[in-house]
Amino acid sequence: MKSSSTGPSFSPLDLSARPDKVRSMLFESQSLVVTDPSNVQWLTGFTGSNAIVYLDHERFVLLTDQRYQEQGPLEIREAQSPAEISISKNLIEDVSKLAKTEIINVDANSVSWETVNQLRERTGTELISSSPLKTLRAQKDQFEVERISFAAKVADKALTDTVPLFSENVSEMDVAAFLDNKIREYGAAGNAYKTIVASGVNSSKPHALPTTRRIVQGDLLIVDVGAVVDGYRSDMTRTFVIGEPSKIQQEYLTTVLEAQEEAVRSLEPDMPCAELDRRCRSKIEEAGWGESFIHGTGHGVGLDIHESPAINGRSEEKLMPGMVVTIEPGIYFTDTCGVRWEDLYEITETGARRLTLSAKSPQA
Amino acid sequence: MKSSSTGPSFSPLDLSARPDKVRSMLFESQSLVVTDPSNVQWLTGFTGSNAIVYLDHERFVLLTDQRYQEQGPLEIREAQSPAEISISKNLIEDVSKLAKTEIINVDANSVSWETVNQLRERTGTELISSSPLKTLRAQKDQFEVERISFAAKVADKALTDTVPLFSENVSEMDVAAFLDNKIREYGAAGNAYKTIVASGVNSSKPHALPTTRRIVQGDLLIVDVGAVVDGYRSDMTRTFVIGEPSKIQQEYLTTVLEAQEEAVRSLEPDMPCAELDRRCRSKIEEAGWGESFIHGTGHGVGLDIHESPAINGRSEEKLMPGMVVTIEPGIYFTDTCGVRWEDLYEITETGARRLTLSAKSPQA
Repeated sequence: MKSSSTGPSFSPLDLSARPDKVRSMLFESQSLVVTDPSNVQWLTGFTGSNAIVYLDHERFVLLTDQRYQEQGPLEIREAQSPAEISISKNLIEDVSKLAKTEIINVDANSVSWETVNQLRERTGTELISSSPLKTLRAQKDQFEVERISFAAKVADKALTDTVPLFSENVSEMDVAAFLDNKIREYGAAGNAYKTIVASGVNSSKPHALPTTRRIVQGDLLIVDVGAVVDGYRSDMTRTFVIGEPSKIQQEYLTTVLEAQEEAVRSLEPDMPCAELDRRCRSKIEEAGWGESFIHGTGHGVGLDIHESPAINGRSEEKLMPGMVVTIEPGIYFTDTCGVRWEDLYEITETGARRLTLSAKSPQA
Repeated sequence: MKSSSTGPSFSPLDLSARPDKVRSMLFESQSLVVTDPSNVQWLTGFTGSNAIVYLDHERFVLLTDQRYQEQGPLEIREAQSPAEISISKNLIEDVSKLAKTEIINVDANSVSWETVNQLRERTGTELISSSPLKTLRAQKDQFEVERISFAAKVADKALTDTVPLFSENVSEMDVAAFLDNKIREYGAAGNAYKTIVASGVNSSKPHALPTTRRIVQGDLLIVDVGAVVDGYRSDMTRTFVIGEPSKIQQEYLTTVLEAQEEAVRSLEPDMPCAELDRRCRSKIEEAGWGESFIHGTGHGVGLDIHESPAINGRSEEKLMPGMVVTIEPGIYFTDTCGVRWEDLYEITETGARRLTLSAKSPQA
């Protein structure tokens, strides 16, 4: 068998400054209780399935259970996190004992109602919703960009190897299996999300899962694939035509590509995300297909496949240096077909850098 | 390439009776709002990433967004679910318009605090926590058991193919990649969870992720792997010895196996899960390793890898026919090694049926 044992090697993560970044957004008399697994990982480096982080201006504690009594301290040390670790039989009970502040902050979008009720009951303290980590996580540091960029390259290479299959009477499931295997061969831990391989009529569903349908001449074929490397994800989409594109297929492909290019020209710090969405959408509206662009223009990517910022008409966020975002316009015609182009960009001080390097020559 | 295009074929799901089962647990003046994706899938067959289900004694509505305008109706129809579908730009706003009952039930363990606050504000209605789906989902019907059983067989076959690698100087990551690929070849959509391949000292961490460590003579090797088939999951663990087991390795393996067998003898309807855990644990305590059994005896498996019932000392649940549970005692010695055996069982009217069929001959 082919060995992937070497794996990628990166500059080691250094999370030592993160707790103080969060503290700078917390009043003196307040604490933060973190339950979302990606937030826990961002703060401490810990990847286990059961954890709570407690942070105030004095303490910074990762609570987890006995199953992680070895893995917990190890991951914290490797990530250079200053977190203390507490092995607990009842995380909520133990975090409540730590929370001596006047107010506890939690992220209402990720914390469960049950956790809120229990914290309130056990501490007698006021809980408020705030999400300092959402903002902080949106701007990646060099260690994070390095990993996301590597994940993007893995997906690029895996897709390049997969394209020759398309003309070989394979099914969508065959293509997805081959592609996902290649992603691991190139050093990723796995897929960033369920790979989409949607051919012919299936391409009209933006989130189609691979079926047993075989790819045939004349199909449009959407492949949406990402890798996960050291916890960080990538995200890209390519649309292929099997054989010569028809006139209308070519128009779809060109229109969506032009919409993407319009958005990419606008990528720079301080650009409002809603305005970015509007500019991208306007190109598709001009072609008369505005109704068929049935999702947002893009989203942030990092430890989660969808994170801040949201790039859609309702977004109140702005681009900032260090953000890593997708630009992914698409159009979908019920029971007929769809087209989507998606690239990953890092926002820089002056503009943006493309992290997805796969070609956009649709003919397979 | 090897084709997996045919895929498994099952009796079609029939979810038509499920809404009325839930209604029988709801007062006349109450409604249920469901946000957990697995609960949504169990009720309607819908697998998309963004959905809310509303159920009262008159209406049964799946709300999702425009990206799923094709996939939503299709999946509902295929699952024979009587759900109406509502394509919505703001799910919370639209579900609030539906909720005309005196009381809205939500599952506090899965609903976010933000969703609770918005529902309360928009409806002016009292929210209470209840989890009728937790209980209902625990007892599987024949269609569900068929899928879980198939997923277990896929993992059995994939593991059988993988065992010969262990003596070939491969890394944990190599083994995991090979195994995961086999799981797809045998017709699963993917892994039920991140595969654990933990060799030598790494086996002391119950949730170790595969590393670049190469497997060598004298190692204990824990492989914990499951498949997902049509949404339903399987879960099993085998421990191997590379070469001849030492005396103490043999004692570990035998003790944990005897603890598992003790629990399996107790599998029958009405058995309290806490008592089941106690019986399993007592065998390991008798051997003097009680402190090293650092997790529960098992858990339910279905659409989620961990669902009701919990089989541990704090559980207040009882076994019931149709439950599908793991029995998975393990012992772990820090910086040294670990051993775990895990099988999946269906609780029947009179006892239990083993769904995991892999051999337990540890020597590889």
